Amino acid sequence: MFESAEIGHKISKKDYKQREPVLRAALVDAQYTLLERAQFPVIIIVNGVGGAGNGDFVNLLNEWMDPRHIRTEAFTAMADDERLHPEMWRFWQVLPPKGRIGIFFGSWYTDPILARVMGTEKDETFVHRLERIRQFERMLVAEGALLIKLWFHLSKAATRKRYRTLEADPKTAWRVTPENWKQFKHYDTFVTVCEQALRKTSTGEAPWRVIDGSDPAYRSLTAGEHILDALNRRLTGKAAEGGIAAPVPPPSLDDRSLLGAFDYGRKLAPRSYLHQLMVMQSRLNALMRDPRMSRRALVVVFEGMDAAGKGSTIRRVTHALDARQYRVVPVAAPSDEERAQPYLWRFWRHVPRLGHAVLFDRSWYGRVLVERVEGFCTEHDWMRAYDEINAFEEQLVASGAVVVKFWMAITLDEQLRRFKEREATPHKNYKISGEDWRNRDQWPQYERAVGDMIDRTSTDVAPWRVVASNDKLFARIQVLTGLCEQIEAALGPKRRKNRP
Amino acid sequence: MFESAEIGHKISKKDYKQREPVLRAALVDAQYTLLERAQFPVIIIVNGVGGAGNGDFVNLLNEWMDPRHIRTEAFTAMADDERLHPEMWRFWQVLPPKGRIGIFFGSWYTDPILARVMGTEKDETFVHRLERIRQFERMLVAEGALLIKLWFHLSKAATRKRYRTLEADPKTAWRVTPENWKQFKHYDTFVTVCEQALRKTSTGEAPWRVIDGSDPAYRSLTAGEHILDALNRRLTGKAAEGGIAAPVPPPSLDDRSLLGAFDYGRKLAPRSYLHQLMVMQSRLNALMRDPRMSRRALVVVFEGMDAAGKGSTIRRVTHALDARQYRVVPVAAPSDEERAQPYLWRFWRHVPRLGHAVLFDRSWYGRVLVERVEGFCTEHDWMRAYDEINAFEEQLVASGAVVVKFWMAITLDEQLRRFKEREATPHKNYKISGEDWRNRDQWPQYERAVGDMIDRTSTDVAPWRVVASNDKLFARIQVLTGLCEQIEAALGPKRRKNRP
Repeated sequence: MFESAEIGHKISKKDYKQREPVLRAALVDAQYTLLERAQFPVIIIVNGVGGAGNGDFVNLLNEWMDPRHIRTEAFTAMADDERLHPEMWRFWQVLPPKGRIGIFFGSWYTDPILARVMGTEKDETFVHRLERIRQFERMLVAEGALLIKLWFHLSKAATRKRYRTLEADPKTAWRVTPENWKQFKHYDTFVTVCEQALRKTSTGEAPWRVIDGSDPAYRSLTAGEHILDALNRRLTGKAAEGGIAAPVPPPSLDDRSLLGAFDYGRKLAPRSYLHQLMVMQSRLNALMRDPRMSRRALVVVFEGMDAAGKGSTIRRVTHALDARQYRVVPVAAPSDEERAQPYLWRFWRHVPRLGHAVLFDRSWYGRVLVERVEGFCTEHDWMRAYDEINAFEEQLVASGAVVVKFWMAITLDEQLRRFKEREATPHKNYKISGEDWRNRDQWPQYERAVGDMIDRTSTDVAPWRVVASNDKLFARIQVLTGLCEQIEAALGPKRRKNRP
Repeated sequence: MFESAEIGHKISKKDYKQREPVLRAALVDAQYTLLERAQFPVIIIVNGVGGAGNGDFVNLLNEWMDPRHIRTEAFTAMADDERLHPEMWRFWQVLPPKGRIGIFFGSWYTDPILARVMGTEKDETFVHRLERIRQFERMLVAEGALLIKLWFHLSKAATRKRYRTLEADPKTAWRVTPENWKQFKHYDTFVTVCEQALRKTSTGEAPWRVIDGSDPAYRSLTAGEHILDALNRRLTGKAAEGGIAAPVPPPSLDDRSLLGAFDYGRKLAPRSYLHQLMVMQSRLNALMRDPRMSRRALVVVFEGMDAAGKGSTIRRVTHALDARQYRVVPVAAPSDEERAQPYLWRFWRHVPRLGHAVLFDRSWYGRVLVERVEGFCTEHDWMRAYDEINAFEEQLVASGAVVVKFWMAITLDEQLRRFKEREATPHKNYKISGEDWRNRDQWPQYERAVGDMIDRTSTDVAPWRVVASNDKLFARIQVLTGLCEQIEAALGPKRRKNRP
């Protein structure tokens, strides 16, 4: 879920100086309109990785807006005297009334996350507390509150770098405490636990917005504009009560995106390809025949722009499999029968039983890609889909399935080249239609949808694997390798054949 | 949650013969309209206690309606081969499409409940599975499904009686299997587990309807009319998509209600009262001074019709307490400040810390009583309140509070007597207003609201205690006794002072 927040977003000082006063004025305007009308309260949750600028942003927000009408509260792990009341009591005491803004620096997420990271609470307890939070937030939204959840992220390397930079300057060295370094030791666990928390609580009505915290200018403007957008949508009635705060994150301020920042140049020479293909196919074949796979299922998702090479890659995968064991499910527009059912129904039909594999050529992600971009479903429908999809994949994994998801990434130019090639090749002619050409106009919208999809549905149980696919040969080997790796990770270390 | 379903509802054969054909015709009509329009699917879940007539009802429903457009599926505990797919897979396979009706005899509740009753799964797993069900049902409703959840209940005594009656007749003896008697041994555990399941899944959008299963005629007509009502509300657009199936259960067919079936005649002689008052007050006082109470809080709720004697009873309780330890919170209409917050906020403000007690003279139940009856909030608001209140009280109990809830029950006649007495007594005159007289007209609506409240919020962690209050002396002693008993149960057996 933190993929997009690790690509090093950045904006120039000049840009910042230009945009900041505009944002600031608009925020104060919105704040006063909110105050005058007093129709709903605003709750802004600021959480994130240490060093990612949570505190700086909270201070900035108080500077930008009129702090007399803002209540800022900081929450850390529960102190002993806070345990004299029910867990949520301390938050109820400081909820902002209608017309006011409450900034929660740290929140109801802080204590559960820390307790889990430090291992003082079991996973079951953690899950239970997250469910309580879901219920609580759902109640807040049902009561009319505008709930904005910000998560500032920083990669491990960036965190280390930031601490070192702060320490190097005598003026800022005090900001890095031994406690910071102590916590840093738990960075990996921390991020895994946070990922789980975000995944389970990024609901349709109260989604998380993850922001790259590495550049102060970028993170402040991004967070500020997100808040402004959410406020204005609600004040102007574009988002109804109980509606979604700010569903479509605008393109990032620096025009960098996960897919845009991706290295498409990777290639493989045909000779090397043929050798590796053989090696990887036999590795996959051996894995699928491992006796432990009889208690496992395999679910593989292939997504990508038109002509990204999904079909030909799938064939390279199935060559390694036993025909009795797998099925390929091509996903097109839903049939009448499928339209008469809940959205996920048509995929549940094809969920493999243990010991079997299903390869989806396009998948349930259509909801948040084509259906979102083309407006085939409402905003509310695709917003709740992220949460439903995560729950769906979690169920698959819980029952023993290995869920592997590939986004086959090509560039607009490469797509054009392939389209032209198809048109020129008689037996590939049928593969290209007017619609394919029209879809190219929507490329930027699709790219944003893909970015959001990866941010919201790349989870520890079912991560996205983005594969550079401008070179088909390279892409196929990447896919086979990814598949093998994920199956191996799921099966665990191989047992020795001859036990002593 | 099963209180109303244990008072032995019954209707005459004549009544049944009169109403059944009407219901039947209307059900078929509704079924065909549903089929023609094909706008949404209907899912009817039939669960309940063994012997309460689940199976009979499912058969009857198939007889009443056109079975060609109904898909009936029976679900028991998961078989081994069903574990080859994710848990919810078997339900996805048989979801009815738009326009059709699916009857699920047993459902996604069956396996979790049985696993918990048999002790093969821990409470954490059970809670987690119930949360998964909440999410699943929420998705179904968001996708447009009309979800009707019926629970047939039978008290322990009634179950035993029913099995014995069936066994006594050679024609029906075969219907009682050794398995039935084996399950009967777990009756108490079963009902406790079911109560938890119903409490956690009776949401605003998909509430449970609990039906007394002791009389076949009563249960069939009640269930049938509930289904008809839900169908028609949706077909006529009275309930929007995602709205509530059938929120206000009509008065029960036999005009019996929990409060109506209550014995109001119980009395206490003044001399006996004075003695018992002293005994109970000192028992309560000793309990509150028990060192273990420093890790406990006490939350007492007093609800009742006007002039039920809440105030004078509260004074008898507080006489037994140390003034530093308790607070009485009278709850009237919300202040402006309170109106600017989520509904439960004004009660969270008064939640006591451990070691303290708060007595609420009226409470958060106003939402589902006066606000419901007077229309001060929307149907959607009070329907979700049951669930939110249960979650609230569960949090109180989880943090160490003992939550004791009293409904002080008086009759309409007794209220009239007290009103007149108040008018005649100068120093009580202020206690009575025109509004009190007007409220009397709404008595039946209030009685229904009270019945629903008790059914939906009397839980194992915070049960309702209905106290016969036509005699004030009797009521006070009942309240003091109830308080002591519940505190004692929470503290557990007293430790011996002198350990060997």
